[in-house]
Amino acid sequence: MSNPSLLILPGDGIGQEVMAEVRRVIDWFGAKRDIHFDVSEDLVGGAAYDKHGTPLHDDTMAKAQEVDAVLLGAVGGPAYDDLDFSVKPERGLLRLRKEMDLFANLRPAQCFDALADFSSLKKELVAGLDIMIVRELTSGVYFGEPRGIHMEDNMRVGINTQRYTEAEIERGARAAFDMAMKRSKKLCSMEKANVMESGILWRDVVTEVHADYPEVELSHMYADNGAMQLVRAPKQFDVIYTDNLFGDILSDCAAMLTGSLGMLPSASLGAPMANGRPKAMYEPVHGSAPDITGQGKANPIACILSFAMALRYSFDQGDEAARIEAAIEKVLADGVRTGDLLGDEDTVGVSTSGMTDAILAAL
Amino acid sequence: MSNPSLLILPGDGIGQEVMAEVRRVIDWFGAKRDIHFDVSEDLVGGAAYDKHGTPLHDDTMAKAQEVDAVLLGAVGGPAYDDLDFSVKPERGLLRLRKEMDLFANLRPAQCFDALADFSSLKKELVAGLDIMIVRELTSGVYFGEPRGIHMEDNMRVGINTQRYTEAEIERGARAAFDMAMKRSKKLCSMEKANVMESGILWRDVVTEVHADYPEVELSHMYADNGAMQLVRAPKQFDVIYTDNLFGDILSDCAAMLTGSLGMLPSASLGAPMANGRPKAMYEPVHGSAPDITGQGKANPIACILSFAMALRYSFDQGDEAARIEAAIEKVLADGVRTGDLLGDEDTVGVSTSGMTDAILAAL
Ligand SMILES: CC(C)[C@H](C(=O)O)[C@@H](O)C(=O)O
Ligand SMILES: CC(C)[C@H](C(=O)O)[C@@H](O)C(=O)O
Repeated sequence: MSNPSLLILPGDGIGQEVMAEVRRVIDWFGAKRDIHFDVSEDLVGGAAYDKHGTPLHDDTMAKAQEVDAVLLGAVGGPAYDDLDFSVKPERGLLRLRKEMDLFANLRPAQCFDALADFSSLKKELVAGLDIMIVRELTSGVYFGEPRGIHMEDNMRVGINTQRYTEAEIERGARAAFDMAMKRSKKLCSMEKANVMESGILWRDVVTEVHADYPEVELSHMYADNGAMQLVRAPKQFDVIYTDNLFGDILSDCAAMLTGSLGMLPSASLGAPMANGRPKAMYEPVHGSAPDITGQGKANPIACILSFAMALRYSFDQGDEAARIEAAIEKVLADGVRTGDLLGDEDTVGVSTSGMTDAILAAL
Repeated sequence: MSNPSLLILPGDGIGQEVMAEVRRVIDWFGAKRDIHFDVSEDLVGGAAYDKHGTPLHDDTMAKAQEVDAVLLGAVGGPAYDDLDFSVKPERGLLRLRKEMDLFANLRPAQCFDALADFSSLKKELVAGLDIMIVRELTSGVYFGEPRGIHMEDNMRVGINTQRYTEAEIERGARAAFDMAMKRSKKLCSMEKANVMESGILWRDVVTEVHADYPEVELSHMYADNGAMQLVRAPKQFDVIYTDNLFGDILSDCAAMLTGSLGMLPSASLGAPMANGRPKAMYEPVHGSAPDITGQGKANPIACILSFAMALRYSFDQGDEAARIEAAIEKVLADGVRTGDLLGDEDTVGVSTSGMTDAILAAL
C-alpha cells in the first residue's frame, strides 16, 4: 500500500518558516515511528502570485483535490495590499476552501496550563480553557453573489451578500453536534437572528438538526453577546457553531484568550473521499506576520499542532497526535518559549527551530 | 424660550427600571440646577407590541422626529422570541435608528479606575482605558435589500445584503475623524477588505476623507484582528470607526473589557435639525436583561451616563455631563456597587434605586 499523501503549501511570510519545522516533525515520524507520507510542496498566496500571476495555480488546485491532506502555512503580506481584489493572496486560500468544499472549520481554543499566566485574561478565567469553535467555511458573505463595487447615481456602492441554504447550515451543524457528542455534549449556536433573516434560518435549522442529537444540550446566542461572553466567562462554552464571518471574528477573539495566536491550529474538513478520509486542509490560525518574517522568531507550535490535527482527523492516528500534544505541553512546562510567549517584546526566547528542537527531543 | 424636549422610551425589562432612575436625575437637574426639559414618555419594543401589535407605533415615530433628543432603555425579551421577524421588538429600535437617520453611533469603552480590578482582563491592560467606537448605524447588512428567507429548489435560503454607498461611509468617517480631532488624533478603521468588496470601498473612502484631516494618524485593521487586538492590548486604540455589524460585535467585546456592561452609555447622532441640534437618541449598551428584571438589581449607571451624553452632545452642557460623570466616579470610589459590579452572583450590593440615591447625593 502506498503512503498517504500530503501537499504542503507554505505560502507567505512566516508560513514558510513554520512549515520548514513541520517537515522536521514529519521526518521524525518517518525515522522514529515508521509513519511515512508522500510529501509534495507547492506555492500559494503571494508566493504563487509572484511566480504565476495568480494566488493559486490550477495545477496546485488539482493537486490539492487529489492528496489525502493539505497543510497550509499562511498567505498575504503588505507587498500585496494594493493588488486587485481578484488576485489578492487571500483568494488562493478561499479558492482552496471553496473548491475542496471544506465546510467545517474546527478551531480549538485551548489554554495550555503553562501559559495560563500569559493570557490577557485573569488566570482563573482561562486555566483549563478548552473550547472548540466549528465555523462554517464555504458559504455566507465570503462567497455570496451579487458582490463587488459598482456605480449607482454617480456614486460607488460596495455590495456583498450573506447567503445560506438550509443544506449548508445543516451539514455544518451535524459536524458541530458530532463534535459535541465526542466532548461534553454542549453546543452553543451563534448568529444575529434578531436583525438578520439568514440568522433566523440558521437558528431554525440548527434547532431541527438537534432532534437527531437529543443528548446534546443546545443553546442559542446572538453573536455580539457571544463576543462578550467569550471575554467575560469563556469556560461556559464547549462547542460553538457559527457562520463564516462571525466565526472569523469570534475565533480570533477566542484565540487571544489562550495567550498566543502562535499556539493555535485549525482543521478544515469536507465530505469523505473515496478512501473514506475527509477532504482536509490544516493550517495555523495565525497569519503571515510580516513584522517578524525572516527573523527566526516565529512560533512553530500552531503549525505543528495543525499537523497533529491531520494525524487525528485524516489519518486515524489520534495516539500519535496526542504524543505531539504531550511533547508540546512538556516543553512549555519546562519553560521553553519563543518570543511571542514571553510577553515582553524585547526578551529573546528560543528561535523557531530551537522550539522544534525541544519538541523533537520531548517526543 | 421653551424647554428642550426629551422623549423617554423605556422599552422592556430593566429598560423600564433604569429609566425610572434617569427621571430622578432629570428631576434633580430641574430642582437643583434650574435645567429643565419637557419630558414625554412612550412605548417601544415588546411593550409597544403588547399594546399596539407593533414594536413602534407611527405616532411614537413621529414624536421621536420632533423632539430634541430621545432616551431609550432596552428592547426585547424571551416573551417575544417567537414573534414574526417583522414585529420583533428589535424592529422598533432599528426603525428609530433608520428613520431618524442616526448614522453615527458613539460607544465609549471607558474603564473607571475603581472598577479596573473587576475586568476579565489583567488590571494593567485596562486601567485608564478610554476608547471611543464610532459605529455606522443606518446601513450595512442591517438594512440592505434583498433580504429574507425564500425557497429555491425546494430548499430554504436565508439572504441578507451588506450594502454601503460611499456617501454613507463618508459621513460616518467624518464623525469619526471629528471625534479623533477632539481626542488624541488617532483613528483605526476596521473592515474585512481582504474578503469583502464593501470592505475595500470602506477602506478607500476612509482614506480619501483622511485628506481633510491630515493631523489624524489613520490606520486600517481587519475586523478579526481588531477583535483580537481589543483583547490583547486595548490601550493601543483611541477612536475606532467600523460598520454596523462589525461595530455591534466589536463594541460588545470592548464593552466587556471595562468590567460591566451595566456601565456603558451610547449616543446615536444624525444630521443637525433646524435648531442646530443633531437628531439624537441615547441608550445604554446593555439589553433588557430578562434574567434580573423586576428584582431591583439592574445597574442604572449606563442609562444615567447616556443622559449625560445627551447633555453633552444635544444640549451643549458638557460641564453638567462631567458633573454626572464625576459623581459616578466618586460613588464607585466609595465602594458603592450594584450586584453586577461585585463579581459574585450571590453578593448583594445596593439596589437600582440605591445606586441612584448615592449618585444624587454625590452630585
Ligand atoms: C486570511 C483570511 C482570508 C482568513 C479569513 O478571513 O477567513 C483568515 O482571517 C482566517 O480566519 O482564516
Ligand atoms: C438589539 C439589537 C438589535 C442591537 C443591534 O444589533 O444593533 C443591539 O445589539 C445593539 O448593539 O444596539
